[in-house]
Amino acid sequence: MSILVVGSVAFDSIKTPFGEVSEVLGGSATYFSTASSYFSEVKLVAVVGEDFPDEHVETLKGHGIDVSALQKVPGRTFRWKGYYEYDLNQAHTLETELNVFSDFSPVIPDGHCDSPFLFLANIDPDLQMKVLEQVRSPRLVACDTMNLWIENKPDALRKLLGKVEICVINEGEARELAGEASLVKAAKKIMDLGPRTLIVKRGEYGAVMFSSSFIFSAPAYPLEEIFDPTGAGDSFAGGFMGYLANTGDLSDENLRRAIIFGSVMASFNVEAFSLKRLGSLKQEEIRSRYMEFKQLTHFGDI
Amino acid sequence: MSILVVGSVAFDSIKTPFGEVSEVLGGSATYFSTASSYFSEVKLVAVVGEDFPDEHVETLKGHGIDVSALQKVPGRTFRWKGYYEYDLNQAHTLETELNVFSDFSPVIPDGHCDSPFLFLANIDPDLQMKVLEQVRSPRLVACDTMNLWIENKPDALRKLLGKVEICVINEGEARELAGEASLVKAAKKIMDLGPRTLIVKRGEYGAVMFSSSFIFSAPAYPLEEIFDPTGAGDSFAGGFMGYLANTGDLSDENLRRAIIFGSVMASFNVEAFSLKRLGSLKQEEIRSRYMEFKQLTHFGDI
Repeated sequence: MSILVVGSVAFDSIKTPFGEVSEVLGGSATYFSTASSYFSEVKLVAVVGEDFPDEHVETLKGHGIDVSALQKVPGRTFRWKGYYEYDLNQAHTLETELNVFSDFSPVIPDGHCDSPFLFLANIDPDLQMKVLEQVRSPRLVACDTMNLWIENKPDALRKLLGKVEICVINEGEARELAGEASLVKAAKKIMDLGPRTLIVKRGEYGAVMFSSSFIFSAPAYPLEEIFDPTGAGDSFAGGFMGYLANTGDLSDENLRRAIIFGSVMASFNVEAFSLKRLGSLKQEEIRSRYMEFKQLTHFGDI
Repeated sequence: MSILVVGSVAFDSIKTPFGEVSEVLGGSATYFSTASSYFSEVKLVAVVGEDFPDEHVETLKGHGIDVSALQKVPGRTFRWKGYYEYDLNQAHTLETELNVFSDFSPVIPDGHCDSPFLFLANIDPDLQMKVLEQVRSPRLVACDTMNLWIENKPDALRKLLGKVEICVINEGEARELAGEASLVKAAKKIMDLGPRTLIVKRGEYGAVMFSSSFIFSAPAYPLEEIFDPTGAGDSFAGGFMGYLANTGDLSDENLRRAIIFGSVMASFNVEAFSLKRLGSLKQEEIRSRYMEFKQLTHFGDI
């Protein structure tokens, strides 16, 4: 089954303790769609400026990503500049240039409106809602969000959360959204707003999935070096949604497997800048890392 | 098989977001021995002052803990005063009174010298070594330590690490000891100093066990409230060592189970101040929480 993703396609300039890059391909929709392309069909909705090179479009196409709804408009592409220190869970923003993104009003082409899986990556909740309204009875809708919208668009965000099944969010932002220090209590409060499943991303500590009937905790893959965490959360969401779309199975058991595939894709992504590692994976590497997660977490009965 | 533990028995005054207590029974050896007493015989070596009430000695005895090497000497018992804010991973010390602990020179009674399992709780590494030298060919030696000794007694600590099989340490302290931001690299460096197994405690993020052949990651139990984290690390170590001593099985598979029992005991401990919860458990509760950890982490093959 296919996934529709709406989010950002951007140029990132990033400095980490391990290196530095300037204006590389990034953005939530880029990471999400690349990660999910290993599992399922994916259609990308985003906007770029006239400075966006065909070469990047070809890269996305090369992964089988449907870029027919990637609009190119007059102006400059969205840019993010930031750095990480040794605490790689914390991105420090130096500069954000919205550029063409500031007037983005996503129009979903008719052929995309029947996508059964919809991922609303982290953009203005009003835009996320605008997309949701154009998609006809999707089977599964998931969204991401961030502190900017929690603080500046709380009403629009709450309205959106009332319409999605799954919310994927960072740990600190889950606490902020719920106004609750205890993560377990925060999860309950957020699920009371609508989502039946909440997935909390904890960076190098992995992810926790909450639902009314269970909690599932997954570690992050223990890498020697986290080279660049940019895009890890979107790669995670891409692996998660991609596996669900691939199997079409939304059982609790399969949601757990999907969380592990999300963790697998995030672990590859952080091994290099941009799509350098995430964009050149073999299916065998993905399966093999899944099995490593089994070894990492397995313990026997008593 | 029996465990010998050397560490502190103390009076703690603690403030958390959920309450406040003054001069309650605490100390590393108290938490360790109480947690391990549910699994195996345990012999406690520590020192207290004349102000230490018989009632507390009876509490420890009530758990079957051998207190024959708990020395009572002239002076006041060790006292710790501290508080936690909403980040419960971080203890803030207000006051430490070593009192009788400052002249503590542990003498292991002859009947205790054949203990097959030895836990050197977090005290001066010179004292830990003094204990180790008195115990005859123990089957398994584990130790804890902290930033104070890493900074002030690095040579004594390194000498000790050369003599222990298992080191249990907080995440930040592992990084500090190794001088390495990457936890995976830090673990390798610490294991190069001696221990064949390193257990890194991550507070509300659980624990990771490193050995030359595998890494095992365990989450913390998702509690609605962490009432008081004091003693969680020692309760963890007590559950871990207790299960190993109970089974006498030091295989990799059993070390994994022991990590989960450690996590189980830590999760009970943080539900209340002092031994209020840890000291009143039923075997059935312990087994049942172990099975909850299975549910929390289980995912299927692909």
